[in-house]
Amino acid sequence: MRNISLVVAYDGTNYHGWQCQPNAITVEETLRSAVGRILDHAVKLYAGGRTDAGVHAMGQVVNFFTPKSIGLEGLTRGINSLLPVDVRVRDAAEVGEGFHARYSAKSKIYVYTILNHTYNSPFLARYALHVPYDLDAGSMDTALRLILGAHDFSAFKKKDEHYRSTVREVRKVLVRRRGRVIYVAVEATGFLRYMVRNIVGTLLLVGQGKLCVDSFGEIFESCEREKAGPTAPPHGLFLRKIFY
Amino acid sequence: MRNISLVVAYDGTNYHGWQCQPNAITVEETLRSAVGRILDHAVKLYAGGRTDAGVHAMGQVVNFFTPKSIGLEGLTRGINSLLPVDVRVRDAAEVGEGFHARYSAKSKIYVYTILNHTYNSPFLARYALHVPYDLDAGSMDTALRLILGAHDFSAFKKKDEHYRSTVREVRKVLVRRRGRVIYVAVEATGFLRYMVRNIVGTLLLVGQGKLCVDSFGEIFESCEREKAGPTAPPHGLFLRKIFY
Repeated sequence: MRNISLVVAYDGTNYHGWQCQPNAITVEETLRSAVGRILDHAVKLYAGGRTDAGVHAMGQVVNFFTPKSIGLEGLTRGINSLLPVDVRVRDAAEVGEGFHARYSAKSKIYVYTILNHTYNSPFLARYALHVPYDLDAGSMDTALRLILGAHDFSAFKKKDEHYRSTVREVRKVLVRRRGRVIYVAVEATGFLRYMVRNIVGTLLLVGQGKLCVDSFGEIFESCEREKAGPTAPPHGLFLRKIFY
Repeated sequence: MRNISLVVAYDGTNYHGWQCQPNAITVEETLRSAVGRILDHAVKLYAGGRTDAGVHAMGQVVNFFTPKSIGLEGLTRGINSLLPVDVRVRDAAEVGEGFHARYSAKSKIYVYTILNHTYNSPFLARYALHVPYDLDAGSMDTALRLILGAHDFSAFKKKDEHYRSTVREVRKVLVRRRGRVIYVAVEATGFLRYMVRNIVGTLLLVGQGKLCVDSFGEIFESCEREKAGPTAPPHGLFLRKIFY
């Protein structure tokens, strides 16, 4: 059996997230159906990250097994020809049989995009959170640096979601302004559900001066979800890259 | 009566062009209805450029008259609050009573965007023409420079469209590659319908080596629409800016 990995980009606007579920269109089901039609057999896809409804991906990674000898370029072209334009295979590779898109991942980068301008943009509205009031990207960056390293991220988890461990290791963070757009990037070895969106929701309070950097740190250390800010909406979030 | 001008951006994907027409959703009607509701009286909009179905705008300019004393910021916010997110007022100004968005315009810039990469992008699919084969932006730029100045643009007009004069003056042109994206920009004092899209359709033949620069020039000089390339699709085209 060959083990094939794909790098996949998608606009999550019209999908109920990555993972298959009954009575809802998901990216996984859309891709699985296209791959299955090209290979002429059913496939199970293993995904590097399970993006929630409305979240986008530039670098989702999946792998699947097939006995077919089809070339990688023909496979990619074939799958793309069956996919709607909001889902694209960007690359395909043959990987070792032990490769698993999720368990082999060393870290992932998520980027949250904010349009910080009086008026929203028709072109960015699907891909960035519109924040009309002034944000101080500098203080957001300072606050975000407090999450670097291995910590308990309970303060930023999804309410009523339970884990064996809520400790995750954050390797790199960045808040950068480019003109009217602010990018919040977090690279970690793993993420809790809603973690980035809850961090961003709390950082927005810092950016508008409603919360000082120290208070952000105290909320983070308290491990109490109720103290942190609201969950930022999904449409600003991108699964940017997965490292193996 | 106050004469108010607005700078308007829109994603043309879901509209049957700018201009009002029966039984079709147009940007003009969408904006006119929002302005009318805020001012509480019907308005006639004068627009700087009439974009065709599916064409986008970053810098459409309109003007209208009102006796109301409403402030420009309140007016803009109010209109935007009633508009769908794919149409946004970016700026508002009070102008002299002689100002007419179309007749006062000195020149306009249109930009055509091409994604030149093996695979399309879910994020650019609505805003760029996907061209999977290699394009030589350099020869496209050389060919495009041939249209600089005042010329008869009949070779690039819409079939069966008639004008008193088909002479237009092109002031600036540019073909620039930025990574996988190629921009074709044309600034002119006026445009024939489909002119930019027909120029781009012919430039694509140059870019892929099917037509040499000299032949492009000969087609242009022949003034025969049949000799030029096909009309490039609307979704790559943006009305970028109007100069007054």
